[in-house]
Amino acid sequence: MVKQSSTRKPQGFRYEEIADQVTQLIEQGTYRPGDRIPSVRQMSLQKEVSISSVLQAYLLLESRGVIEARPQSGYYVSRHGNLNLPEPEVSSPSLDPSRVNLHELVMMVMRDSLNPDLAQLGAAMPNLELLPTERMNRIMARLARTASRGMHRYQLPPGVEELRVQIAQRAVNCGCQFSPSDIVITSGGTEAIDLCLHAVCKPGDIVAIESPMYFGTLQIIEVQGLRALEIPTNPRDGISLGALQFAIEHNPIKAVVTISNFSNPHGSCIPDEKKKDLVELLERYDIPLIDNDVSGELYFTEKRPLTTKAYDKKGLVMLCSSFSKDISPSLRVGWVAPGRYKNEVEWLKFTLSAATATLPQMAIAEFLESGGYDHQLRRIRREYANNVVMLSQAVMRTFPAGTRVTRPSGGYVLWVQLPENVDSLELYSLALKGGITLTPGYLFSPSNHFYNFIRLNAAAWNLSIERALERLGGMVVELAGRS
Amino acid sequence: MVKQSSTRKPQGFRYEEIADQVTQLIEQGTYRPGDRIPSVRQMSLQKEVSISSVLQAYLLLESRGVIEARPQSGYYVSRHGNLNLPEPEVSSPSLDPSRVNLHELVMMVMRDSLNPDLAQLGAAMPNLELLPTERMNRIMARLARTASRGMHRYQLPPGVEELRVQIAQRAVNCGCQFSPSDIVITSGGTEAIDLCLHAVCKPGDIVAIESPMYFGTLQIIEVQGLRALEIPTNPRDGISLGALQFAIEHNPIKAVVTISNFSNPHGSCIPDEKKKDLVELLERYDIPLIDNDVSGELYFTEKRPLTTKAYDKKGLVMLCSSFSKDISPSLRVGWVAPGRYKNEVEWLKFTLSAATATLPQMAIAEFLESGGYDHQLRRIRREYANNVVMLSQAVMRTFPAGTRVTRPSGGYVLWVQLPENVDSLELYSLALKGGITLTPGYLFSPSNHFYNFIRLNAAAWNLSIERALERLGGMVVELAGRS
Repeated sequence: MVKQSSTRKPQGFRYEEIADQVTQLIEQGTYRPGDRIPSVRQMSLQKEVSISSVLQAYLLLESRGVIEARPQSGYYVSRHGNLNLPEPEVSSPSLDPSRVNLHELVMMVMRDSLNPDLAQLGAAMPNLELLPTERMNRIMARLARTASRGMHRYQLPPGVEELRVQIAQRAVNCGCQFSPSDIVITSGGTEAIDLCLHAVCKPGDIVAIESPMYFGTLQIIEVQGLRALEIPTNPRDGISLGALQFAIEHNPIKAVVTISNFSNPHGSCIPDEKKKDLVELLERYDIPLIDNDVSGELYFTEKRPLTTKAYDKKGLVMLCSSFSKDISPSLRVGWVAPGRYKNEVEWLKFTLSAATATLPQMAIAEFLESGGYDHQLRRIRREYANNVVMLSQAVMRTFPAGTRVTRPSGGYVLWVQLPENVDSLELYSLALKGGITLTPGYLFSPSNHFYNFIRLNAAAWNLSIERALERLGGMVVELAGRS
Repeated sequence: MVKQSSTRKPQGFRYEEIADQVTQLIEQGTYRPGDRIPSVRQMSLQKEVSISSVLQAYLLLESRGVIEARPQSGYYVSRHGNLNLPEPEVSSPSLDPSRVNLHELVMMVMRDSLNPDLAQLGAAMPNLELLPTERMNRIMARLARTASRGMHRYQLPPGVEELRVQIAQRAVNCGCQFSPSDIVITSGGTEAIDLCLHAVCKPGDIVAIESPMYFGTLQIIEVQGLRALEIPTNPRDGISLGALQFAIEHNPIKAVVTISNFSNPHGSCIPDEKKKDLVELLERYDIPLIDNDVSGELYFTEKRPLTTKAYDKKGLVMLCSSFSKDISPSLRVGWVAPGRYKNEVEWLKFTLSAATATLPQMAIAEFLESGGYDHQLRRIRREYANNVVMLSQAVMRTFPAGTRVTRPSGGYVLWVQLPENVDSLELYSLALKGGITLTPGYLFSPSNHFYNFIRLNAAAWNLSIERALERLGGMVVELAGRS
C-alpha cells in the first residue's frame, strides 16, 4: 500500500486560511445557502491540519454568520447570514460579434438560442411543442422503474439491438435494405459525422462539401485537421455534379459530405434520379459519401425522398441520421449505416466515447415499435410546411428589394440572401440588441463568401415571431439604405 | 417545391423482385415474426410500382406462408410460416488473436467481456452488484415522469448546472477549489480525454504517457494522429519524474497524460508530494497535464489521495473523471475541469457531440445531492480492497515461479508479469477456449514490450472466479514449462 503522509501541520496556524477557502467556495457558488459543508473530520483529513484548527475556522465563520451548526448533523451555509450576497453569475456578455472569432461566434449563437428572452430565429432547434414529450416521459419512466441490473452495464457498439431493428425497418421507406447489424448507434447525429470522417480521412486530407454547409460539420472538419473544398450547390436540387466531377479530377478528394435531403441551410433536396447519378459518380472514383439524412423525414412532398444509400452498390455511402429533430434533442441518440466502413466506425465509436447511454436508446426503440412515430411525423410535417411558408412570406413582405429566400421542400430553415451592402454580422449585432437571434452567413463557409446571408429558423410561427420578423425587416431596410 | 418523379414502372414486371426483397428483409432480421411489414400503398410509393404489383407480390408471399394478412390492419410476418428459419446471427467468431490487428483485438476483448459464459477477468468493468442500481432507477423514473418540455431541449456545454455544483462540492475532498463554471460535463471519461487532447495537440504532436498506459487512451492518441512517448513508470508510485524531465528536454512534448490515482493497469498512485513536483515540473515548461482520475474515489487507504489539480497554479492541469465506475457505466456521464483550456474544451464538446443526454446528468446530480454516494463508495472500497487481495493471493498460489503481481492501493485491476517465455496472446487464446477472458499486455503499449504481461479485472471474487484462476494458473504453468 502507498503510505499516506500523516504529518500534521502545527495547530492553529492555518485556521484563517481554511475559513477564507470555505468563504470563497460559498461566494463562487460551489456551496449554496442551505448546503452542508464538509465535516470537521473530513476537512481535517484533507487539509492535514488538526481537528481543533478546523473547529476554530468553523467557529470564526459561524461568528461571521456565514455558516451555522445544526446539532447531530454538521455545518451548513447560512440562509440568512450577513455574507455578502453572491454576485450574479457571469452572464454571456453582449460581445461585439465582429470582434469574436468563429468558435466564439458559434457558441454565442447557440447560447443566444437558449435564451428565452430572445425571438428564436437562430440555431436550428426543433419546435419543442411538436415533440412527443409526454409519451417519451412515460416510456422512460416505466423503463427506468423496471430496469434490470444488466441495463446498467456498458452497452458497447453497435448499440441496443431493439433500436437497430426499428431503424432497419423504417429504412425500407427510404429505399434501404438494412440488416440490424448494418447500423451503429451514436450519441446524436453530430458524433455520427465525426466518426465517418475519422474512418475515411486522415489529417491534411481534402473533403468536398456542399456550399453553403451546416457549420457544425465545418467545425468537425476543422478539428480533424482536414481541408474543405466547397462545391457549388443549387438551392433547389443540391450539389453540382459537374463541378464535383471537375473537383475530383483535379484534387485528391478523400470523402464527399452532403445533406441530400433538405440541406442545412439551403433546404435543397437532391432529386432521387440525381442521387443515383451522384452515387455512381463516386463509385467510379471509389470515394466515400457521408450523407446526413437528419431531416429526411421532414418532407413537405407527397412521399419521403429516398436516400443516396438506396443506390449504394459498393458500400461507399455512410448514411447518418438522428432522432434529435423529431423525438427529443436531449436524448442524444443518432445512428449511422457505414457500409463497408462498419468495423472501423464501430471501433472508432468505442474508442472516442465507449458507448451511448442505454435508457434513451431503449426508450426510442419502444416509441418506434409502438407505432406512434408516424402519427407524430405527420403532424410535424404539416406544421413545419406551414411555418416555413408563413416565415418566408413575412420575409418577402418586410425585407427590402434585392432580398432572396429559398423555397425548401422539407426541414425548417430558410436561407436568406440580403442586399449586397448588408453585413450579416452587423445585422446579428443589431438584432440581438432588439431581442432577436439569427445565424449569420459567415458560419456556413470557410471562405466567408456568405457574408450577406442569414439563416432563419422557421420551426415556430406565432405572433411574437411575426412581430420580431417585422422589426428585423426594418433593420435590414435601414442597413441596406446606408450609402 | 422539388417535383417528385411520378412515372410508374410498367405493371407487374417487378412483383417477384419485391417479394424477394421482403423475404430478404425477413431473413436478415429486419422484420421478425409478428412484425407488420410496410402497407401496400407505402410500398407502391417507395418502389414506384403500381398498387397491383405490390398486391401481387404480397399474395405470392402469403401463398408461400411468409406473411399473413390481418383484416383492417395490414400484412404481418408469419409466426408459424414455412419460411426458412432465420440463421443464427453472425456471432463473434473465435478469431485467432495472434492474427487480428490491435483494433480487432480490442473489440474482441471488450465483446468477450460482455459474454456471460466467460469468467470475467478481461475488461475493467465495475462489479454491477456494487452499483446503486435500485436507487438510480427510482430517481430516473421520477425525473422522467415529471420532466418538463424544457428538459427535452438541447443541454449545451458545459452541461446541467445542478450536476456541476455537486461535482465542485465533492472536489473539495481531493484538494480542488472549483466553481461550478470550471467544469464541463462529457459523455463519459473517454470523451473527456479525447476533448483534452484535441484542445492542446494537433496531428503529429508528441504526447508523453505513463507506460504501461490504459489502451483506450492509446487508441485516442492514435485516432488523433498524435505520437505517444512512453515514460518509465513505477508500479507503486507512478511516472518517473527524472525520465519525464529528460524526455521534455529532448522532445517537443505538447501534453502529458497520467492516471495519477490508481492507474490502469498498474494500480499505482503518485504520492501527493510527488504530484506537486510533477505539476511544478510541467509549469516550468508550460506543458499541460491531462490527468484521468476515474478511479480516484476507489482508494483502500485511510483517506482519498489528492489530485494533481490540487497543486495547479497556472491552470495547466486538465482533470478528467466519470461516474461509470461507481454509479453506472450505462449513463455515460463524465466531466473535465480543463483549467485555462476551458473555452476550447467547451467548444470542442459542442462541435464533436453537441451535448450529453440530460436525464442521466440530472439523475446523478440528485443522487449526489441526496448524500447516498459516500455510503455507496464505502461499500465499494471495502469490497474492491478485499477482492484485489483475494485475486492476487490466488495468482501467487497458482501461477508458476517467476510471476510478479502489482499491489495496488486502489481501483480493481491487477497487472501480472508472466515468465519471459509466456506470450500473453497465446495465453489469451488458450484461456478463451477454457471459458476465461483476460486482457493481453500487448494492448498497453504502442511498442509491444508488455508481451508477457496480462491485466486481470479484480472487481468480483467468488468461487467460479477462483476456479477460473486456478485453471488459468495451470495454463501459464504449461506455457512456461515448454522448452
